[in-house]
Amino acid sequence: MEPMRVAVLGATGAVGREMLRTLEERRFRLDELVPLASPRSAGVRLPFADDVVEVRAVERATFEGVDVALFSAGADASREWAPVAVAAGATVVDNSSAFRMEPDVPLVVPEINREALDGHRGIVANPNCTAITAMMAVAPLHVAAGLSRLVASSYQSVSGAGHRGVAELLEQVEKLRGAEEELARPDPEALPAGEVFGRTIAYNVLPRGGTFDPDGATTEETKFVNETRKILGLPDLEVAVTVVRVPVVVGHSLAMYAEFDKDLSVEAARLVLARFPGVEVVDDPLRDAFPTPLDAAGRDEVLVGRIRPGPRRRSLQLFASGDNLRKGAALNAVQIAEALTG
Amino acid sequence: MEPMRVAVLGATGAVGREMLRTLEERRFRLDELVPLASPRSAGVRLPFADDVVEVRAVERATFEGVDVALFSAGADASREWAPVAVAAGATVVDNSSAFRMEPDVPLVVPEINREALDGHRGIVANPNCTAITAMMAVAPLHVAAGLSRLVASSYQSVSGAGHRGVAELLEQVEKLRGAEEELARPDPEALPAGEVFGRTIAYNVLPRGGTFDPDGATTEETKFVNETRKILGLPDLEVAVTVVRVPVVVGHSLAMYAEFDKDLSVEAARLVLARFPGVEVVDDPLRDAFPTPLDAAGRDEVLVGRIRPGPRRRSLQLFASGDNLRKGAALNAVQIAEALTG
Repeated sequence: MEPMRVAVLGATGAVGREMLRTLEERRFRLDELVPLASPRSAGVRLPFADDVVEVRAVERATFEGVDVALFSAGADASREWAPVAVAAGATVVDNSSAFRMEPDVPLVVPEINREALDGHRGIVANPNCTAITAMMAVAPLHVAAGLSRLVASSYQSVSGAGHRGVAELLEQVEKLRGAEEELARPDPEALPAGEVFGRTIAYNVLPRGGTFDPDGATTEETKFVNETRKILGLPDLEVAVTVVRVPVVVGHSLAMYAEFDKDLSVEAARLVLARFPGVEVVDDPLRDAFPTPLDAAGRDEVLVGRIRPGPRRRSLQLFASGDNLRKGAALNAVQIAEALTG
Repeated sequence: MEPMRVAVLGATGAVGREMLRTLEERRFRLDELVPLASPRSAGVRLPFADDVVEVRAVERATFEGVDVALFSAGADASREWAPVAVAAGATVVDNSSAFRMEPDVPLVVPEINREALDGHRGIVANPNCTAITAMMAVAPLHVAAGLSRLVASSYQSVSGAGHRGVAELLEQVEKLRGAEEELARPDPEALPAGEVFGRTIAYNVLPRGGTFDPDGATTEETKFVNETRKILGLPDLEVAVTVVRVPVVVGHSLAMYAEFDKDLSVEAARLVLARFPGVEVVDDPLRDAFPTPLDAAGRDEVLVGRIRPGPRRRSLQLFASGDNLRKGAALNAVQIAEALTG
């Protein structure tokens, strides 16, 4: 076999580090790992496969001989470096939003639409972390009964904004230590705010993901709608979503209401989900079992539960939690790389 | 004028204390305050109107001569003591779920259905804190355009479970101090759990409110559906809701998707809401203005924002945050008392 070289751009970020761990955990067949980042992070040493690898500053030459490049350094870096990597012969699995809605770029969750990889032209996009979590719960039900409408509200962790998001939450919790009771009637001037979320995220929820589009949706909401439609191959699907950031470290969750074309009982939905790879049904009212982000953190499976009838015929309600750094990002990207090289 | 005696049952609880503060802040016309609680809390001294009042153990005699009794000591206490108070000649404003769905008990948010008070027979019910917050945002739109469907997901603070809920969150945050980064791959055995929520609520969200009904809904979800229908006078309204507890100290929020019988533009919805007493529209994407529970905490108004079109004609999406101890409980109860005695 030819040697397999895998590059990770953004290797020092929250998702990048998880990509390294995931490659290692899944024993991805590789002969050389090329950890890349901006010049600022060059020289950082990261543990990998009982060894230590040194991060290199990304430049044209670093993609030479690379077979697969996992990108997680933001949309600007992807726009700059993906064409370079593709020109050098690599296939790029891009975790940013840069190319997701390009018609000739597959947007893939391997368990759901692996076949979409067939037409790729060098770039494959990894969906948004919230969309992946939602789709793992909804796509199996769609296959079973035909999804016709989706209303979702998210509960997204701060690690979706990277290390800095986590640091900002923890700094704010520390600043408020001993004064938490005063949060019952807070002094707005005294509340900690930060650069990442722009507002107090500790002991608060922020119904805004990304920035605002002119129609009043946030960029994360627009991504969710567009990516859901593309992944499911339902370009006209009715999707309503509100993206909300919550003071959770790792784990994105969604409360969802879904309507279907055909009857789908709660029992049938549980069975369909339990059989779907990458999903674990956690749904037992009698045992007080339901998904939470803390239960999903550090795990590969998306947890789905609270499956119950909706108020109208052919509707269901459900709740899903997934590790946004794993299945929501690094794991899904590595699974795409596995499918590309397998 | 005859002397006005007001009793508060559950005076030492989170809502009870807020009731005392609210009576004082709103200069409720009263000549005597009778703070009541279980024998366990008798003797506790509480500040009231530049003075201190001593809590008395509730018994039959404590309701003699009482005109209005605000109850916030749980459903069991309400079932035991409301008939006693009514027999003694008092009108009971009950914050528990005990009587809310009784046909002859009005369920009242004064700004919305004050006229329902007319038929009362001694007991008036205060709705669930989440239902009040949602209804303050939705009822004005219903009057304008006729609500036909509602899908809601809640973000409920721990103070909805009283002082003990707040204490449990803060204890868990303290236990996890310095180990928050480990929450990315938590050891389930090492996670703090507590009696109030039964699971880790710090850095987590729990999609379960109350206990589970046989149909898979939680008691708080069933309350929300039933109370929404009763307050709006729409017994067949389609309501889907998921109740989720979040690590917020004070302030309940809801992400909502609503369908109407008539056209209702975003601009018209903002105007209708801005004119509605007790609502403040906080909705300016260009200024990054939206409601959050921390902004609502300590305030009387329910904040409504993120008003935007839904995916189908005659639908809107919105987000509301309200102080669950104030408008969600104590303030609404005192407003009912004002309406009854005014």
